[in-house]
Amino acid sequence: MGKSRKQLKLGALLHGVGGNPAMWRHPDTQPDASVNFGLYKQWVQKAEEGKLDLIFIADGLYINEKSIPHFQNRFEPISLLSALASVSSHIGLVGTLSTSYSEPFTVARQFGSLDVLSGGRAGWNVVTSPLEGSALNYGKKEHPEHDLRYRIATEYLEVTRGLWDSWEDDAFVRDKESGVFFDPEKVHPLNHEGEFFSVKGPLNIARSKQGRPVIFQAGMSEVGKNYAAKEADAIFTGHENVEDGIAFYQDVKARAASFGRSADEVLIFPGIGPIIGATEEEAERKYQEVANLITIETALNYLGRFFEHHDFAQYPLDEPFPELGDLGRNSFQSGTDKIKRDAKERNLTLRQVAIQAATPRSRFIGTPEKVADVIEEWFVRGAADGFMLAEAVPNGLNDFVDHVVPILQQRGLFRTEYESDTLRGNLGLAIPANRHSLAKASI
Amino acid sequence: MGKSRKQLKLGALLHGVGGNPAMWRHPDTQPDASVNFGLYKQWVQKAEEGKLDLIFIADGLYINEKSIPHFQNRFEPISLLSALASVSSHIGLVGTLSTSYSEPFTVARQFGSLDVLSGGRAGWNVVTSPLEGSALNYGKKEHPEHDLRYRIATEYLEVTRGLWDSWEDDAFVRDKESGVFFDPEKVHPLNHEGEFFSVKGPLNIARSKQGRPVIFQAGMSEVGKNYAAKEADAIFTGHENVEDGIAFYQDVKARAASFGRSADEVLIFPGIGPIIGATEEEAERKYQEVANLITIETALNYLGRFFEHHDFAQYPLDEPFPELGDLGRNSFQSGTDKIKRDAKERNLTLRQVAIQAATPRSRFIGTPEKVADVIEEWFVRGAADGFMLAEAVPNGLNDFVDHVVPILQQRGLFRTEYESDTLRGNLGLAIPANRHSLAKASI
Repeated sequence: MGKSRKQLKLGALLHGVGGNPAMWRHPDTQPDASVNFGLYKQWVQKAEEGKLDLIFIADGLYINEKSIPHFQNRFEPISLLSALASVSSHIGLVGTLSTSYSEPFTVARQFGSLDVLSGGRAGWNVVTSPLEGSALNYGKKEHPEHDLRYRIATEYLEVTRGLWDSWEDDAFVRDKESGVFFDPEKVHPLNHEGEFFSVKGPLNIARSKQGRPVIFQAGMSEVGKNYAAKEADAIFTGHENVEDGIAFYQDVKARAASFGRSADEVLIFPGIGPIIGATEEEAERKYQEVANLITIETALNYLGRFFEHHDFAQYPLDEPFPELGDLGRNSFQSGTDKIKRDAKERNLTLRQVAIQAATPRSRFIGTPEKVADVIEEWFVRGAADGFMLAEAVPNGLNDFVDHVVPILQQRGLFRTEYESDTLRGNLGLAIPANRHSLAKASI
Repeated sequence: MGKSRKQLKLGALLHGVGGNPAMWRHPDTQPDASVNFGLYKQWVQKAEEGKLDLIFIADGLYINEKSIPHFQNRFEPISLLSALASVSSHIGLVGTLSTSYSEPFTVARQFGSLDVLSGGRAGWNVVTSPLEGSALNYGKKEHPEHDLRYRIATEYLEVTRGLWDSWEDDAFVRDKESGVFFDPEKVHPLNHEGEFFSVKGPLNIARSKQGRPVIFQAGMSEVGKNYAAKEADAIFTGHENVEDGIAFYQDVKARAASFGRSADEVLIFPGIGPIIGATEEEAERKYQEVANLITIETALNYLGRFFEHHDFAQYPLDEPFPELGDLGRNSFQSGTDKIKRDAKERNLTLRQVAIQAATPRSRFIGTPEKVADVIEEWFVRGAADGFMLAEAVPNGLNDFVDHVVPILQQRGLFRTEYESDTLRGNLGLAIPANRHSLAKASI
């Protein structure tokens, strides 16, 4: 129970009526949750009561009639995170925004503004948009191909980081007597001219007290892993078992080292969906309650979204998973590769693949002690620096904060008070120096 | 004092350290106000205490070393308004966003999301971006010319309104028993293919309880006035005297009628900078305190921004205002035309023009009774449906709420309680029907 024990980090993925296609049907789910701000406010305050590091809002830019309920009608991340900023005080506020369908000057401003108004608690999950349909909402002939999206994202982040450094931290003199508001030597236009972007700057908002927003990334393809290892402060991932988690963890930390970064500079957060019961049986019953709400039709639609909204209803359900060629490789590349590989290796039928995709049974299921044990195992064996909690059953966040967090605290694995009021501070990440101040200091 | 008297509307323009170049130097101004969220929170709560209809956040997409202090380092509107939404309950939340440097799918989502999370209190001030430098921050070769910007803005608003109507108000069935989340007959992809935009839809957020955000516009050129009269719910304008105000009011209402709209559908809000004192002398002293903080150099820079950041320091100060040709016509067209015309007609020197531009002396100056009298005169004589209050001196908003609002209430000109909890409700604007529900109802 030593204070000196390495601390794990915790985030909560908030996703309204649920990230699976059927949780909204459960009696304990508020069916308008995805557009109910009062509920998001309760969640963020519960997460803060549990001293969690951050909440996380995922996003997407395209829906069709087969999209899951949460995706049809939900809040947009910048507005939602900003509204949550003023009803919370310490918790980090992280959201997804795509580099394929936005302008870096606007995105640097919006995350910069959220970062300042929240007192240094913003995080940006950089995504390249997996859904091909996104192009149709943005007047584009076609969705850029996978590796091109990552090249764009690389330059994009270079531009936004440059804009965030427009003003040195002591640029604003604000001397009423002399009338000098800022020191012109300490403001730096960017003058970026690149392959995809040309941005003059300076940005019209200065750095927050954490320097700049924390960068999250969730790429799992080869290109995606390299991008994350090179650019991200934190990685949101997912694994079926602890061995896969350890392999991924070692892989990414080694890639980070190859880019000259230390292992502590890139935190790895597997996503987990804890299901807590007073007994093992109660937890299992909670899982079954949700799983039983999913119809095979819903499961096929859910699966289809990963494959460019492919219509799986055309295939026989109880024959081997169909041959799909390259379908899905330009959207969720690593995910669809894995589904195809598993189906082949384990000789699964379409029905089996669809049900498994739509209702994965969490390994983090059982009594609070059991769930705390699995978390501790993953953490201690080196599969995770922290975890991103997703609600697999209604009230999953409440159950976790009320019953699992106290055990993790007793074991000395998790904080009992926030160390800092910035997200970087709580995550143990250094505040990056402004490049221009740094350049001067080294002269 | 009759309840039946026509009510005026009031908004408060919040702009940090001030919309003029020198107010930040006043001893009573917090010099970090433009990035101080606590202060914005106090202001919005003061405005709500005064039962004001709305607060308004202006914006711009380009700065250089001559921009006024507030523009150098300020919050971005979507994030700021969203953060203010959760610390207020009835007041409208209006912000500027440019149609020249953004994507309609994103903007429809962000304002739609703000509208839902605030419970129907969002407003969007549609601007086309006057500053040519904006192009340089968005990878554009050049700033689109004035009339082209309005053509883009027209199609842009058509797209966003279409997206906001993606879901009929009763589309979300959310029937847990049957598993039907929404009625597919009540969701409508947009399939817009236009001159400037191609957007498929549907939007992934439904309408708020006020139907859609209130549209503000501030165009004063011929093209701008037509645009506002045709498209806007409310117009933010500015006049030097009541006669000009009446002429503008009649002009715009007539234009609205020519587009088949009733006079009540377009509300006109002149911007005013009230300066309140216990005596006339105290009010005058407050004005002088701020005016005396402006140097001629600051005034020249302030003036220059309207003319594409033209360098006025190159001309002799006490000779006639220089000949500028078309300079400024592609940015603030109506404003720069007026400055040139006034200078010629009144034979003004450069110094006179610059000082007048940077420190306009409000006509709404004096004791609370006197300011209420001028407001009543403009309102009763038909120069305004309401007013947009800007702080011309520190604590201007507090003074107005504490001392002028009670007089307007006593005279039966202003509400003592909110009529509604939506912005449309308080402004007396009808909730627009969803086009698709309307189409069905009329069959």
